[in-house]
Amino acid sequence: MTTTGKQLFTTLTADGKLTLEVAESQFPTPTGNQVLVRMEGAPINPSDLAILTSAADFETAEYSPGKVVAQMPEPFLSGQKGRHGQRLTAGNEGAGEVIATGDSDMAKALLGKRVACVPGHAFSQYAIADAKMCLPLGDHSSEEGASSFVNPMTALGFVETARMEGHSAIIHLAAASNLGQMLNKICLEDGMQLVNIVRKQDHVDLLKALGATHVVNSSDDDYMAQLRAAIKDTGAFLGFDPIGGGQNTDHVLKAMEQVASSQMGEYSRYGSNQDKKMYMYGRLDLGPTILTPSYGLQWQVAGWLLTPFLAKAGMETVVKMRTRVQQNLTTTFASHYKAKVNLEEMLTKPAITDYRQMKTGEKYLVTPWG
Amino acid sequence: MTTTGKQLFTTLTADGKLTLEVAESQFPTPTGNQVLVRMEGAPINPSDLAILTSAADFETAEYSPGKVVAQMPEPFLSGQKGRHGQRLTAGNEGAGEVIATGDSDMAKALLGKRVACVPGHAFSQYAIADAKMCLPLGDHSSEEGASSFVNPMTALGFVETARMEGHSAIIHLAAASNLGQMLNKICLEDGMQLVNIVRKQDHVDLLKALGATHVVNSSDDDYMAQLRAAIKDTGAFLGFDPIGGGQNTDHVLKAMEQVASSQMGEYSRYGSNQDKKMYMYGRLDLGPTILTPSYGLQWQVAGWLLTPFLAKAGMETVVKMRTRVQQNLTTTFASHYKAKVNLEEMLTKPAITDYRQMKTGEKYLVTPWG
Repeated sequence: MTTTGKQLFTTLTADGKLTLEVAESQFPTPTGNQVLVRMEGAPINPSDLAILTSAADFETAEYSPGKVVAQMPEPFLSGQKGRHGQRLTAGNEGAGEVIATGDSDMAKALLGKRVACVPGHAFSQYAIADAKMCLPLGDHSSEEGASSFVNPMTALGFVETARMEGHSAIIHLAAASNLGQMLNKICLEDGMQLVNIVRKQDHVDLLKALGATHVVNSSDDDYMAQLRAAIKDTGAFLGFDPIGGGQNTDHVLKAMEQVASSQMGEYSRYGSNQDKKMYMYGRLDLGPTILTPSYGLQWQVAGWLLTPFLAKAGMETVVKMRTRVQQNLTTTFASHYKAKVNLEEMLTKPAITDYRQMKTGEKYLVTPWG
Repeated sequence: MTTTGKQLFTTLTADGKLTLEVAESQFPTPTGNQVLVRMEGAPINPSDLAILTSAADFETAEYSPGKVVAQMPEPFLSGQKGRHGQRLTAGNEGAGEVIATGDSDMAKALLGKRVACVPGHAFSQYAIADAKMCLPLGDHSSEEGASSFVNPMTALGFVETARMEGHSAIIHLAAASNLGQMLNKICLEDGMQLVNIVRKQDHVDLLKALGATHVVNSSDDDYMAQLRAAIKDTGAFLGFDPIGGGQNTDHVLKAMEQVASSQMGEYSRYGSNQDKKMYMYGRLDLGPTILTPSYGLQWQVAGWLLTPFLAKAGMETVVKMRTRVQQNLTTTFASHYKAKVNLEEMLTKPAITDYRQMKTGEKYLVTPWG
């Protein structure tokens, strides 16, 4: 017996046509540890946009009800060669009610409950999810629980990564984001020092109002001096950058090196012996990353991705992190939405034009029955 | 009692003037574990050029006997702020005869012997060196022993790094260099797979004549296809890049990802789950490093420097490496020189113009008494 419902699909063909469309789908009866969730809310995260919009031209796209066809430019077309011709589902996470389950005790225990889940096809009226990754929401609404995985686990993951690598301070770029605000709260709770970098005075004010001690504005003329002072104060030589493109990471590494070399007794032609590391965990800017030769040879730049991190951290740590999220869902880990759209509204020009900009504090929630 | 001899000094002032000059120096009587070496030969390595020439303009420089004054452009002037106004010595390594020693048994045992050493001021008629880092040369000449530290230990260090990080294959850029030829020999001896990347057909031929199995020419139209085939053959997802600037590392990471994702069962929007890592161990190109968003988030780019590597590897490994160098000085670890210059000749326009290009197989040896 299958269940029928509407679902979003994204297809990129070799000729560069990206098609997003809402179509009817059949959802199978869950087996084993699976649960069938009637989805009530799913956030559009930056990580979803990689597969939804990428760098396609939605200005000149063809829009029809529940469908949009846009052109994908190079090098993003050939860069996604692996998906050419495949009809993919989308939506990492969301929340809803469990209406059927597989045979496992863990799955059966969730029947009738509202849960947060990570099905990978959350932009849908129904989803098949792994019971192990479901978080029972108790009295919380699906709106409150829809974003309980990607951002909370990423923010907690940054702090855990810093600890695992022996750091007691973190630098965070684009720090006024939903994720950035969570990170700020976690760092305050855990006594981890945090240097927040933002681009607007509004965001400085916002983070300071949330108790942030170090907030640096990269639009200020004395940005580098502010940044050096904050690094000196905190000893932060590890950073996380969701922007990727341009020189954001380069400038942070340069400031780290300037602080480190000013603290050295003797000049070294190879730069300071201080380890300096920046993680890129996103690509808000799809342009190339520029690294200048201005911080010696004692540095690292690396990608950071949630799934391999969780695998590395181990089950015990992951369970601890999930429990902490569950217990603080409407405080530390609260998410806010600018707008709610159903699946068809999600594919209109005004909506796409707005949410693809990924502006700070302007997240969308997809409510597939709305 | 001090010893008097000629020595090279390099000074960069805040107004951008880089002065290289030969001057008389006093060398103190060695104490403790020190030895005083009458220097007979010292190579000009790329790592020496960082402090000797950097990006200064030697075309319009003022030359006089034993002296040259050149202008340093930005951003290299402010990037070397730490050395402004300091009169620095230069020359990482060299060889010569021990003519006086400190009190330690290790130092005294070297008296009268020809040794390779790493004084950091090898462009000099005399040098004070640490006996612990000296390699007795036996019947070998100073010319044979002068380059026994930087290149041999770096090449051995790459193989050791690969082993420590669980790799059985290495990619090497600018692979026809003196260092690259050593690495090729070591990899053949140790059963480590090696993908050599060069820019000229001559260098393909040279490495193939030395027994290299995988040599890829980045000037060929089908470079990326050649590189993918070599990566597929060897499973090389770790590389070493002495160039730094431009897209050399970017292209290698891209090829690694293309191979890894072609071997995946299912498309992932985040790229393959294969770890991909590139080390930069030099800056033959002082331009910025360009990294494009074309290999997911499972990658690392990091600086690689000999001294911290040796510290990490530990004394036992370092001693093993040194012994291997000593036993194979004129075979695996042989160096060749294009020209010999004394300290004054080293500062003439034709010499600087030539050696600062760091052309493959065109290394200079400084013979301070020549």
